[in-house]
Amino acid sequence: MPIARVHRIAAAAPDDVSGIEAAIAAGAIAPAGVLAIFGKTEGNGCVNDFSRGLAVQSLELMLRRHVGAAAGKVCLVMSGGTEGGMSPHWLVLERAEGGGGQGPALAIGSVHTSDLPSEHLGRLGQVAQVAQAVREAMAQAGITRAEDVHFVQVKCPLLTLARIAEAHGRGAQTATTDTLKSMGLSRGASALGIAVALGEIPMAQLSDAAICADLSLWSDRASCSSGIELMGHEVVVLGMSDAWSGPLTIDHGVMRDAIDVAPVRAALARAGVAADALGEGADDRLVAVLAKAEASRSGLIRGCRHTMLDDSDISSTRHARAFVAGALAGLVGRTDLYVSGGAEHQGPDGGGPAAVIVRRG
Amino acid sequence: MPIARVHRIAAAAPDDVSGIEAAIAAGAIAPAGVLAIFGKTEGNGCVNDFSRGLAVQSLELMLRRHVGAAAGKVCLVMSGGTEGGMSPHWLVLERAEGGGGQGPALAIGSVHTSDLPSEHLGRLGQVAQVAQAVREAMAQAGITRAEDVHFVQVKCPLLTLARIAEAHGRGAQTATTDTLKSMGLSRGASALGIAVALGEIPMAQLSDAAICADLSLWSDRASCSSGIELMGHEVVVLGMSDAWSGPLTIDHGVMRDAIDVAPVRAALARAGVAADALGEGADDRLVAVLAKAEASRSGLIRGCRHTMLDDSDISSTRHARAFVAGALAGLVGRTDLYVSGGAEHQGPDGGGPAAVIVRRG
Amino acid sequence: MPIARVHRIAAAAPDDVSGIEAAIAAGAIAPAGVLAIFGKTEGNGCVNDFSRGLAVQSLELMLRRHVGAAAGKVCLVMSGGTEGGMSPHWLVLERAEGGGGQGPALAIGSVHTSDLPSEHLGRLGQVAQVAQAVREAMAQAGITRAEDVHFVQVKCPLLTLARIAEAHGRGAQTATTDTLKSMGLSRGASALGIAVALGEIPMAQLSDAAICADLSLWSDRASCSSGIELMGHEVVVLGMSDAWSGPLTIDHGVMRDAIDVAPVRAALARAGVAADALGEGADDRLVAVLAKAEASRSGLIRGCRHTMLDDSDISSTRHARAFVAGALAGLVGRTDLYVSGGAEHQGPDGGGPAAVIVRRG
Amino acid sequence: MPIARVHRIAAAAPDDVSGIEAAIAAGAIAPAGVLAIFGKTEGNGCVNDFSRGLAVQSLELMLRRHVGAAAGKVCLVMSGGTEGGMSPHWLVLERAEGGGGQGPALAIGSVHTSDLPSEHLGRLGQVAQVAQAVREAMAQAGITRAEDVHFVQVKCPLLTLARIAEAHGRGAQTATTDTLKSMGLSRGASALGIAVALGEIPMAQLSDAAICADLSLWSDRASCSSGIELMGHEVVVLGMSDAWSGPLTIDHGVMRDAIDVAPVRAALARAGVAADALGEGADDRLVAVLAKAEASRSGLIRGCRHTMLDDSDISSTRHARAFVAGALAGLVGRTDLYVSGGAEHQGPDGGGPAAVIVRRG
Repeated sequence: MPIARVHRIAAAAPDDVSGIEAAIAAGAIAPAGVLAIFGKTEGNGCVNDFSRGLAVQSLELMLRRHVGAAAGKVCLVMSGGTEGGMSPHWLVLERAEGGGGQGPALAIGSVHTSDLPSEHLGRLGQVAQVAQAVREAMAQAGITRAEDVHFVQVKCPLLTLARIAEAHGRGAQTATTDTLKSMGLSRGASALGIAVALGEIPMAQLSDAAICADLSLWSDRASCSSGIELMGHEVVVLGMSDAWSGPLTIDHGVMRDAIDVAPVRAALARAGVAADALGEGADDRLVAVLAKAEASRSGLIRGCRHTMLDDSDISSTRHARAFVAGALAGLVGRTDLYVSGGAEHQGPDGGGPAAVIVRRG
Repeated sequence: MPIARVHRIAAAAPDDVSGIEAAIAAGAIAPAGVLAIFGKTEGNGCVNDFSRGLAVQSLELMLRRHVGAAAGKVCLVMSGGTEGGMSPHWLVLERAEGGGGQGPALAIGSVHTSDLPSEHLGRLGQVAQVAQAVREAMAQAGITRAEDVHFVQVKCPLLTLARIAEAHGRGAQTATTDTLKSMGLSRGASALGIAVALGEIPMAQLSDAAICADLSLWSDRASCSSGIELMGHEVVVLGMSDAWSGPLTIDHGVMRDAIDVAPVRAALARAGVAADALGEGADDRLVAVLAKAEASRSGLIRGCRHTMLDDSDISSTRHARAFVAGALAGLVGRTDLYVSGGAEHQGPDGGGPAAVIVRRG
Repeated sequence: MPIARVHRIAAAAPDDVSGIEAAIAAGAIAPAGVLAIFGKTEGNGCVNDFSRGLAVQSLELMLRRHVGAAAGKVCLVMSGGTEGGMSPHWLVLERAEGGGGQGPALAIGSVHTSDLPSEHLGRLGQVAQVAQAVREAMAQAGITRAEDVHFVQVKCPLLTLARIAEAHGRGAQTATTDTLKSMGLSRGASALGIAVALGEIPMAQLSDAAICADLSLWSDRASCSSGIELMGHEVVVLGMSDAWSGPLTIDHGVMRDAIDVAPVRAALARAGVAADALGEGADDRLVAVLAKAEASRSGLIRGCRHTMLDDSDISSTRHARAFVAGALAGLVGRTDLYVSGGAEHQGPDGGGPAAVIVRRG
Repeated sequence: MPIARVHRIAAAAPDDVSGIEAAIAAGAIAPAGVLAIFGKTEGNGCVNDFSRGLAVQSLELMLRRHVGAAAGKVCLVMSGGTEGGMSPHWLVLERAEGGGGQGPALAIGSVHTSDLPSEHLGRLGQVAQVAQAVREAMAQAGITRAEDVHFVQVKCPLLTLARIAEAHGRGAQTATTDTLKSMGLSRGASALGIAVALGEIPMAQLSDAAICADLSLWSDRASCSSGIELMGHEVVVLGMSDAWSGPLTIDHGVMRDAIDVAPVRAALARAGVAADALGEGADDRLVAVLAKAEASRSGLIRGCRHTMLDDSDISSTRHARAFVAGALAGLVGRTDLYVSGGAEHQGPDGGGPAAVIVRRG
């Protein structure tokens, strides 16, 4: 019976894998069991964020030393941007073989897709590819009911000028020629793919035109990050399964807006943890917080104007990550949170899903 | 017996004074009683933040239409930077003459100083000038005990290349030639001036060298913002006085670090408001939150590394405002907060004072 | 017979009009003759550039002191962004009544339009309004042939979230909901309006869809800047007219790409000035350089990749202004140049028009 | 008799070494002869520029595949920042063994130093270490006279919060605790080390206090870049030597300010190339331009104010690179230039050395 282990490890730089190496050396991590590594890296989280590429290359080199070619099967999902006080760190997701125990418990499934043709990015072709991958990852995790899925992380590609030119060279038209905008379209289509796989939205209800336009369509468990360092998708499903055992549990809530921490407080409570008791080091039961952040397109938060979309110096995604991370860090008393930006179709406009992984008492 | 009134009014732009005009037209504000206007404006909050200058010019033109030359006596304290989801707004502080009532209540005193010679900026000369102004503002507010002061806002000058050159032309050396750094030195010296006036630190214990260097020296009620649009200081003291009446009360706490919201929750509770009940529009008793934000120089928050000081794209003051505003907005459920950056000697390293103004039930 | 005077005056800040005041006091400028003031101000030149609004407010206050309500007729065209080594300055364009002399000489015409409904921005409605205004300004300047026009400066509006909401409230759809993008659409439609007025492109050849999309359509004398501080257009036409006299002459060239300074060198030569002799203070015959800058959408300059469109930290308009200003400053040996960003339909992709005003020997 | 070869190769991303691989595969580059690779990468060129680290890691992996452990001897000098229209590229410097020919010709020497203790950074300890390394590199290149050296490139370390803490932990004090400032101090001390080695300034004339303070001290051939990815120095000397042959020659000039292109024009002329004939692809004799850029501390360029040092949104080094690159690209008609920022003690205030490598006809 498998056991999910989640290791939260500080990173001193995007290429600092020494903490993971140390955990492997100490026997705390068995490298062959690593399914995925999520990284919060300190770039700008936008098009020209090279901290993600540096992290991926460094993690791959490290994994290759331990498991050889099997390193290529590990999902490496780097989310750039540790704005505000967020702390760069790795979340190593491991499937260990346990000696029994009692389910249900946290279960993990991970899948790599093939490369996405650039003209499919931000369109139904991407939605379909992601939906299929989510179903495969659920099966791999032994999760049979969609309601047992609490978080789906997708790493998806973006367009660069070179990729746009490549598509044009084949006579294909990309959904946009704006590279920053392509990040949003890719995240949005991926999120709708998750929604389709989880039965939240029927595929027939979607169209190319709805992607990043009809904000009433969203998944409450999708988290998508786009990056320059891949051409396909990496999909990781986290949920509860009777087929897994161990001390970890996961739950989620949906933040209605950027400061709506009550649903996260409630999810923690359901998992047996009081938010107000956290943050002083005494209680280490909170293993991870995974959340999305974005600037509401309405330009408002609870009726008050925000300026994130009018700031030409700082991308709104950077503003939003800093602000939402502050709200969550104020709640849980810790800054090594996985808050990623760009929440198109991931929760309601200006809000987003938030999952908590907790070690049961 | 005077009554303090605090009007929180949204601003659609740095030159949007229409909300204040409307309140005057409606009789809600008597312009002759306005002692100070605090503004949270949407510039970068750093050296080249012209939103502050535009706001000040617009407010002055507006006040001049109503009270003529007396407009020059109103303290206009613009704090640039509405990073994250903060909402640009004005806080109009008014002294009204009441019909009796019972003290103690919120009391306001305000003072303008003469211009500061640029070579005194960031040195003991500035400390002494600010300390004297705080004492005058306390007297004006009818506050006799230092412990009844809960918040002192100082707007202080900064150095520009032209001002540095002017001082050099007179044979004087400024404390720095780095214009961004001058903002911190000015805030730091002003904060120490407040600490001296409130009896927190004896003047004899200070030296030029300690300013912005010895972080163990701090006031727990100082809030200082520097701006290009003035050459002297504007000092506003907020506290409780038996000589004032009316429904408003003020209290404060000190955030130990950027995510330490517990002292603010406690201050609200002492003032009779439960933080968790706020934010849904039902409870309008919270009139204002005034707080400071900064990146800890240690590079850590509760042991975890932050990257604010290593980011050459975004000033750490902008990161810190977004993050601390997020923490406070998560607590009180509102985004029109007055969180200003640069907290040198204003609370402990990485933390800062936070005051709440509340309408009693 | 009118004489055009062009005064180049340094600005120490966006609200520093002291240089203009001094010139008026010295009798060098007759305020009643001022038709337009171009300003290069030091904001970011993008949506949240408040240096432009501060400059306009300060210029208006100054003009009002001298000419009263007639101040409203002066075109105030602020171009934000002095990236690289560009120097903030004013160009005061004055129509003086001369004592005779011989034409042709520099002629100036200026026109204000009514407010543009936000749903017309970036569409044919804006094109038509600007074309009509250019024709009026030519008539006012006494320029009868389109080929005698060498530079048309248009200041045009942009969309803010509030303006978009206002249009939506009336049931109207704006061309975009992206505020930064609206700046480009407004400049592009204005440039096509100039092209129509100058006979470069027939109106019938245009469509909404072509605006900012069909880059083969461009004017070689258009310069458009968008700003938050106006809702209509301000149009200034500069050209040669037999009806004007005086020492000033104007000519122009079209830069094919960001580093193509040869056409500017040629225009200077036609006006009697050798570029290589400039820049050392000895030769003050160069009165003004007015040029456009933008990042080529191809992503290339002479076959080499640039990264301006992939940089999420700095707007491509800021990169382009700094770079083109460097190329021109290297040519003419001076940094107080009027290089404005965003050259949609203003010259070929990645290039742009450049005009020179020269004092004849 | 050795022959210097310089290969200019475009990079599509910081980890794109495919162009170098292709040149090796085609036999154009013999990997065993590569002494150094200079890279212009597309990060921000400041503290958190991970494009440099990614490039170094990618180049090392590539070199290791070809030459094994000898890869560690190649100097990899990445200069971040391709602001404006600069084009990311590699300059591969190779020492080939030729079949005779006639000197003098371009000669190359390269040296790695040991790690610099962080408390020596920006102080005389760093000056001495660099001076010694320059002498070794000259000897290696067979250059005996200092006047035959035309360019010395040093890659030097910077301080991070972690490195500062490490030094403090040993009881040592670093020259600064400001990480961005440490980049300047490191470049400045390295430049003075070059000046000492070239006999421009005697070591006895220097002091810790003069570093980055006394701007009258400078080398006219120094180019220093600091980066997070190394702890010691990499030193590459380029000059003319009778012991080398081949078609390449090098010369240099000193730009007096950011727009002073005349000395570069003169250096090209001495090397037999007319600047005005370049840039149209017809003339490929210009192999490389290597120059420094910085904002003048005086705040002026030829008497006109610049705003680079007052801009809190964009580092002055980014402004300066964009602007100087524009001036040089306008001169030579090409954008793949190696313009690096931060010119402390590298040429006069606001100016800097510029070297040209030319293929003789």
